[in-house]
Amino acid sequence: MDISIDLTTASAGPEPMYEQIAARIAAQIKSQALPPGSKLPPERQLAERCGVSRTTAINAYRRLEELGLVRTRVGSGTYVAEGSGEAAVLPMPWHQLLVPAWQSPVSGIIRDLVAMDAAAGVSMATGMPDPGLYPWAAFQGLLGQGSLAMKDLGHIATEGYGPLREALAARHTAAGVPAKAENVAVVAGAQQGLYLLAKVFLNPGDYVIVEAPTYMGALQIFQSAGARLLTLPAPGPLQLDLLEDYLIRYRPKLLYVLPTYQNPTGRVMTQPERQALLTLAARHRLAVIEDDPYSDLFYDREPPPPLKALDQHGGVIYLRTFSKTVFPGLRVGWVVAPEAVIHRLALEKQYVDLHSNNLAQWLLYKFVASGGLDRHLTAVRREYRQRRDAMAQALRRFAGGRLSYAVPDGGFYFWCRLTAPGLTTRALLTEAGRQGVSFVPGDAFYPGTEGEREFRVCFATNGAAELQEGVKRLTRAAAQAEKGSVQAPRAPAAPLPPII
Amino acid sequence: MDISIDLTTASAGPEPMYEQIAARIAAQIKSQALPPGSKLPPERQLAERCGVSRTTAINAYRRLEELGLVRTRVGSGTYVAEGSGEAAVLPMPWHQLLVPAWQSPVSGIIRDLVAMDAAAGVSMATGMPDPGLYPWAAFQGLLGQGSLAMKDLGHIATEGYGPLREALAARHTAAGVPAKAENVAVVAGAQQGLYLLAKVFLNPGDYVIVEAPTYMGALQIFQSAGARLLTLPAPGPLQLDLLEDYLIRYRPKLLYVLPTYQNPTGRVMTQPERQALLTLAARHRLAVIEDDPYSDLFYDREPPPPLKALDQHGGVIYLRTFSKTVFPGLRVGWVVAPEAVIHRLALEKQYVDLHSNNLAQWLLYKFVASGGLDRHLTAVRREYRQRRDAMAQALRRFAGGRLSYAVPDGGFYFWCRLTAPGLTTRALLTEAGRQGVSFVPGDAFYPGTEGEREFRVCFATNGAAELQEGVKRLTRAAAQAEKGSVQAPRAPAAPLPPII
Repeated sequence: MDISIDLTTASAGPEPMYEQIAARIAAQIKSQALPPGSKLPPERQLAERCGVSRTTAINAYRRLEELGLVRTRVGSGTYVAEGSGEAAVLPMPWHQLLVPAWQSPVSGIIRDLVAMDAAAGVSMATGMPDPGLYPWAAFQGLLGQGSLAMKDLGHIATEGYGPLREALAARHTAAGVPAKAENVAVVAGAQQGLYLLAKVFLNPGDYVIVEAPTYMGALQIFQSAGARLLTLPAPGPLQLDLLEDYLIRYRPKLLYVLPTYQNPTGRVMTQPERQALLTLAARHRLAVIEDDPYSDLFYDREPPPPLKALDQHGGVIYLRTFSKTVFPGLRVGWVVAPEAVIHRLALEKQYVDLHSNNLAQWLLYKFVASGGLDRHLTAVRREYRQRRDAMAQALRRFAGGRLSYAVPDGGFYFWCRLTAPGLTTRALLTEAGRQGVSFVPGDAFYPGTEGEREFRVCFATNGAAELQEGVKRLTRAAAQAEKGSVQAPRAPAAPLPPII
Repeated sequence: MDISIDLTTASAGPEPMYEQIAARIAAQIKSQALPPGSKLPPERQLAERCGVSRTTAINAYRRLEELGLVRTRVGSGTYVAEGSGEAAVLPMPWHQLLVPAWQSPVSGIIRDLVAMDAAAGVSMATGMPDPGLYPWAAFQGLLGQGSLAMKDLGHIATEGYGPLREALAARHTAAGVPAKAENVAVVAGAQQGLYLLAKVFLNPGDYVIVEAPTYMGALQIFQSAGARLLTLPAPGPLQLDLLEDYLIRYRPKLLYVLPTYQNPTGRVMTQPERQALLTLAARHRLAVIEDDPYSDLFYDREPPPPLKALDQHGGVIYLRTFSKTVFPGLRVGWVVAPEAVIHRLALEKQYVDLHSNNLAQWLLYKFVASGGLDRHLTAVRREYRQRRDAMAQALRRFAGGRLSYAVPDGGFYFWCRLTAPGLTTRALLTEAGRQGVSFVPGDAFYPGTEGEREFRVCFATNGAAELQEGVKRLTRAAAQAEKGSVQAPRAPAAPLPPII
């Protein structure tokens, strides 16, 4: 009796070795190559043949016994069970059926982070507005108004709820970005906007220019679409020469930028930089995705107009969201673009979810139209300004010398750099976990391996006192890490991460 | 001066010919191949060279003039404008940048239909619950309870809102489908569930078995994923021999079925058929997607247990939705599957939208947990049973002899077949539009060109009186169509379609 087990193949799978061996033998039992009553080799012999430990061989036989495919007779050996050829049922080998997943190089980081964030006393990692500031009371008031037509809770156009599209178009037009409702598509958060844009613009191998560092969700989407990324340094002035070199050498399809309160650096692109960028884009027929989640969150002065307002050649796609200003959980963002683009986005979105949830769209429409959004923005700007100032003060007071950073004019983040020679953010992260504070290490924001001495802290989610405590802990962690008292990071937790 | 216009390429694009010609000339002006001041050929000559009409040539020059690239001197001709090489800005050629869209063979049908549905006095096309039955008052009551934690309006796990996953798992377990919360992923409607399943299981060229006819959204998703479809005839008994032939010959990856109140035929797979199907699936390691939007909508007797309840080898993925029972617009469906599958779905969903809207998830959780869903189901079953009976009566009374159909035990649809020799549903559709009634022609539910004498009518959206009127109009349309008084269908409207 010959049990041929192909070890090359067996060792490549994601299942434990004993499962793989059991599956091989099971297949031979099911195909009657090993008929009922056949004696299987002793465990020691099986182990030798397969080049595995005896425990693995024992476990393989145990598994087959569980499945009812073999029986063990004490003192005699292991035999193929009667009637095993047809009746016994092996569980589905799902791992064989699933197509290989695209694994983000930063997904490991993110998992560490989510585990740490849940445990942290002061979380400064995720880029979420403070739940204490959510305008839920205002929304409950809107819900009570009952002016919702029942048909609006049925299926609606894929492009979004008409009145919301109208209201957003009017708002943009008033702010210098002329738009009609037909230029607006509502999407399930800016994340989905990016996902759909990648779907409609990118073939594998296409070049996309991104800032470095930039929003990690965009990196993951472009990379999983098979794009090749070209990077523009994000802190410091816009490198127009480099941009032009890229345009000439690689003929990239898209430029993805966050010109206003960039994530993670907080930087604002100046108006002359915006103009120069658009001139280059127009000359080279470069499509520009302007991601703008933060421009309503300014604390010192209003930011320059968006690229979309300065765009003469119609090459800018403008991506907005309510996630940073209202509720992240409603999953409502929108795209402002020429109709040709909106039409294609809608075609793709139809496959993905038919349309976005219309209760949230109706609520947001009422919130915008009633002036609630503007009142809310005024209130949160005041609050976030205080938090920004509190964090700046704490950093000055506690972290002096250990970190370099710029104080942002708006948005949610400080982008910090460790000054101690040789100290990396990963080492700091481990120590920070012990101190009960979290942040996002810099390498998560780069497509390559840069950023190992940088990190992002969010000042939006916590009040001033917590931020001060968080910075204290961070400084303590940095001091500890400098002493080199660093242990290996914990094992990553299983689940996954909305980190924004 | 030589204006070389490659007509082969030009005629392939989606833009009008005059735009394409203008773009070619514009490119030569921009590249200075046609320097400022050059005289362009007279319109007649351009038309001849390009093999187009003179109007097209005139329009091409007009377009260039609009763009500031040429000037026309009366009585003299058309000249390249001064300074046109650098300064003038051409609008973005979006159609060149977008990757080719997958065009569903039925998208033309669907567009006709949406236009017609909007105009129809009695719409029996879309598979939507009646908005008059939406439990909005109950939802407003839930909203007033205010037991919503603010953090639950922030970001949540991609797999869904924990309490809703728990509640759904408990509900399934009680109904004979043992499940833990970890086996449940909330998705943005069953549509998104299918989209994600296609993403994680299908490589281009994979075989998928579907019923024919079947849910058209599934056909579109599988085909756009590059799958090759094998069909099992849906009305009549399950053809197990054919299924086994497919399994042996093609080794398909997935079987997609609607065993209960199938869309569009209304058929219920018997329990012995379900058992036999699962035995074959287990033997051949076939993954089964059981789409089950309608099983709660039974009108005569409870349907047999779902495949998922009978599944011994763990090979069934169970897809459910609130769209047919509560509100379509909330976009909440769910997948019940082994953890390995849930985990991969969540990884993909993270790219698509991070997670589904959590206000809707919280509301549905409260609705399920408070017993509201069960009360609602009892009420809508009673109402829809009456409508089913009203439609059956009207068909007996008015359509006798013109249509053959079976009265369904549950779900939303009658599947009808024209009996008059030579009469097609497309001919009927045109006439029905004139009579102010709509339905979905049968070919929309087939991957091939079958179904041309079949169609689906939905009895859920309208009350008994409207249904009677609808059937009257339909019969009148059939009589007219039989007389051959049929004109060409209207031009398709631009936008697109949630048809379910």
